[in-house]
Amino acid sequence: MSLRLAVLASGTGSNLQAILDHVHGRDGIAVVAVGSDKPEAPALARARERGIPTAAFPLADHPDRAARDTALADWLAGNGAELIVLAGYMQLVTPAFLARFPQAVVNVHPALLPAFPGLRAVEQALAYGVRVFGVTVHFVDEGVDTGPLILQRALELPHARVPEDVLPQLHALEHELLPEAIRLIAQGAVRVDPADARRVLLDP
Amino acid sequence: MSLRLAVLASGTGSNLQAILDHVHGRDGIAVVAVGSDKPEAPALARARERGIPTAAFPLADHPDRAARDTALADWLAGNGAELIVLAGYMQLVTPAFLARFPQAVVNVHPALLPAFPGLRAVEQALAYGVRVFGVTVHFVDEGVDTGPLILQRALELPHARVPEDVLPQLHALEHELLPEAIRLIAQGAVRVDPADARRVLLDP
Repeated sequence: MSLRLAVLASGTGSNLQAILDHVHGRDGIAVVAVGSDKPEAPALARARERGIPTAAFPLADHPDRAARDTALADWLAGNGAELIVLAGYMQLVTPAFLARFPQAVVNVHPALLPAFPGLRAVEQALAYGVRVFGVTVHFVDEGVDTGPLILQRALELPHARVPEDVLPQLHALEHELLPEAIRLIAQGAVRVDPADARRVLLDP
Repeated sequence: MSLRLAVLASGTGSNLQAILDHVHGRDGIAVVAVGSDKPEAPALARARERGIPTAAFPLADHPDRAARDTALADWLAGNGAELIVLAGYMQLVTPAFLARFPQAVVNVHPALLPAFPGLRAVEQALAYGVRVFGVTVHFVDEGVDTGPLILQRALELPHARVPEDVLPQLHALEHELLPEAIRLIAQGAVRVDPADARRVLLDP
């Protein structure tokens, strides 16, 4: 098996680091490009340290989102990316971008979707008073966190009151689940159900 | 501590049975009445076997829901019920009913609310393709499964395809979680947050 993947990140890049530490260079999986909307994102520095090509595509450098995403997609495709992993990438990608990488853009979200899509998911969950938090890895579609689910894992914290009670363990869970999803995709163990595009089948 | 509780059920009464087996007659907790909308509900027979007063309040025997719920509330209050547990009770209760038992009506729901409220929650979750199922015990408010959450527990079943893959384990989880919630309420360990009526505080 082999898989060439690209990672897009806006922030510190801790999910990127988990990918670099746990899947990059193993089992035929290689991170071939790391992009960002922010030139100063620490994620880019992490990638450069590993000798991985990086580039930033700030919206301000392009006429509009469509043009930015075209340039981004061209750069990713030029680096041979087969799978695009959004790992704390704080931009929505355009439908045209998704069409360039069909069923090959995945995102990690800090909630058990369909609950609490969008920004500040943990804050939303705390405001609702949930006892169970969690992480979802899903294919990206044209909605906000609405695409078919690949993996989810729960985190039971019945006494959590503030984000600090949740985030350290939730981030640790992301750092497990996202590499696991990438490994499963590389193994060919993740398939969209031919009978129902909403459902993803996992080989046992 | 002591708690006199009533259970309302429409079906087989397996959650009632869990309450009878694990909390009734212990630690000052007593089931003092079991009601149903269905005279033939097996739940009523389970209660009669234990010598617990039962009654059925079919909608057809009353002019309307308001009248039915008034009769039901009168009967429950007459039996000294302090907490009303909806355990597979397939009727919505009226606001007037809730006002008779403020912050004292709880429901068990087979999903991790706010995801998948309403009927056929497991079927909804499977159609969405979730990997994590779960159970919620919550206070009942005037919405459908929208009240403040008391307890939740998750069930990770990433390969589940049909309800039969989920329901046996989910029912077992309900049978743990509902008695646990009742014990916590009896202990006075469950309080609505005075600063935020949406959140329930659990004593550690």
